Amino acid sequence: MTPKDIEIEILYCGVCHSDLHTVRNDWGGTLYPAVPGHEIVGKVVRVGEHVTKLKVGDFAAVGCLVDSCRECESCKQDLEQYCLNGFIGTYNGNDKHLHKQTFGGYSEKVVVDEHFVLKVPKNLDLAAAAPLLCAGITTWSPLRHWKVGKGSKVAVIGLGGLGHMAIKLAKGLGAEVTLFSRSPSKIQDAKDLGADDVVISTDSEHMKSVKGKFDLIIDTVPYVHDVNPYVSTLSINGTLVLVGYLGDLTPMLNSVPMIMERKSVAGSVIGGIAETQELLDFCGEHNIVSEIEIIKMQDINKAYERMLKSDVRYRFVIDMASLKN
Amino acid sequence: MTPKDIEIEILYCGVCHSDLHTVRNDWGGTLYPAVPGHEIVGKVVRVGEHVTKLKVGDFAAVGCLVDSCRECESCKQDLEQYCLNGFIGTYNGNDKHLHKQTFGGYSEKVVVDEHFVLKVPKNLDLAAAAPLLCAGITTWSPLRHWKVGKGSKVAVIGLGGLGHMAIKLAKGLGAEVTLFSRSPSKIQDAKDLGADDVVISTDSEHMKSVKGKFDLIIDTVPYVHDVNPYVSTLSINGTLVLVGYLGDLTPMLNSVPMIMERKSVAGSVIGGIAETQELLDFCGEHNIVSEIEIIKMQDINKAYERMLKSDVRYRFVIDMASLKN
Repeated sequence: MTPKDIEIEILYCGVCHSDLHTVRNDWGGTLYPAVPGHEIVGKVVRVGEHVTKLKVGDFAAVGCLVDSCRECESCKQDLEQYCLNGFIGTYNGNDKHLHKQTFGGYSEKVVVDEHFVLKVPKNLDLAAAAPLLCAGITTWSPLRHWKVGKGSKVAVIGLGGLGHMAIKLAKGLGAEVTLFSRSPSKIQDAKDLGADDVVISTDSEHMKSVKGKFDLIIDTVPYVHDVNPYVSTLSINGTLVLVGYLGDLTPMLNSVPMIMERKSVAGSVIGGIAETQELLDFCGEHNIVSEIEIIKMQDINKAYERMLKSDVRYRFVIDMASLKN
Repeated sequence: MTPKDIEIEILYCGVCHSDLHTVRNDWGGTLYPAVPGHEIVGKVVRVGEHVTKLKVGDFAAVGCLVDSCRECESCKQDLEQYCLNGFIGTYNGNDKHLHKQTFGGYSEKVVVDEHFVLKVPKNLDLAAAAPLLCAGITTWSPLRHWKVGKGSKVAVIGLGGLGHMAIKLAKGLGAEVTLFSRSPSKIQDAKDLGADDVVISTDSEHMKSVKGKFDLIIDTVPYVHDVNPYVSTLSINGTLVLVGYLGDLTPMLNSVPMIMERKSVAGSVIGGIAETQELLDFCGEHNIVSEIEIIKMQDINKAYERMLKSDVRYRFVIDMASLKN
């Protein structure tokens, strides 16, 4: 433990799809033993002598990053997620003190430099706040970067962990929010979360009815899909931001609407530390948390199986007290 | 002629690739007889009674647009090029007064509503100013929209009519400018135009040396090409803007660098009227014009053949006096 480190007793940890991919080595590169989990909330139990941000007994959170170079142009601009020397992930990262992989939040405790520890507003339900640390910030960062506010027209593609947070946060920012979904069964759910409208993406007439409408589309779909029909629903100067799918855009992206209507297709990953604190504070003010289902640590493999079937509304959160069972 | 119309005696008209495509019906939809030309400069010879912008004897210019709805959200924001009801092109457009196709600048005269007529700074060479109306504004608009200024790092792909203007204009705005070219033979030419550096795009080591460098890339290439190697040279938050190629992006665009480094791929077409006037005024102040080769009207077909072989530095301009030969 360094003088700037904070030791946190973990109370809850959200379950992100990245956890599942890492555990099963879907992306390759997993170092075992692997301890996933990067939606961490807990209580400060020990602080280094130079820590000023938090004190013992405070609620604290840790997201996807536990370190970065802190010197590059990105880090200097509070964009640690784009650290030019590579940020250190909360798990399966390269721990520069221990010289082995970092271990995440499916654990009793975590020790993190105070710069990467967040404060949790007192009014938030701790368990339901956990997913803000990844699902929340992943959608918050593009909403802020592309300046969503009152009067903005935002669409969200996909209603999962990320999508349901995107709806709540965009509404919180004052936007008019539409969900794109393939399934009419999602209409009521989306409206319950605050969506103003739901467009069934497989219905071409329905899609035409929102042609040229949206300033920003947050595309949370995690598998390959055709983005061209969504690009056509962007307004002049609109941007579609990919946050879920890493890979080749198949079928091909067509440049005609991009050129003739000055549209952009972009990407975004998680968010910086200052921006994550901004999100938590915003959620405190607006009383926004994730919709969650609390599970025991012992049920994580069942939870992973259910996630693969999209059978979760909308995020599993592990009650870490169960670790002691 | 309406009370807001201006009649212009055409002195010079630049030759754009669109002219060639239209004449040969490459895009389909050409209405014959077709008179191309949308880089028009000339002298005002008659004005309607309500015209205030220009008077008889003034130098005037007309670009790619001669009308738009003037009522939609785009038009109200001086973005006539993105008119939601479709702008009226200077040629092969839908003339709402004559109820036939519009006729462009390969002609003695043109009559245009004053809103769509530009003023030409007195100090500019008239013939060399003509290409500003299309090649110039097509590159100026993205430079301005993406806020290029002193210290910006801009790259230009391709050294043709658009590319050479992009270099001059980005330099004029104070940017550091790099040309991407497949051909080492372009190095000296680009530097003569003001480029700070030339990167040979077929040299993978050379490409790696500029990884993560550019805030904005203006991609002027008019045929299908792989944009992924250029995306890798964008900085965090950088944007690649397509201005030349209309069609499917083949091979597929990969989302990984877009997401992991918040990069965008966008498009842009020509510019609005206010922005075109801004460009002309800027060029007047900075004494920027196109590099041109003046031809006679009678030589247009030879010029088209040379354009197909990229044998032009960097724009043909027709001396309209030759029409009377």
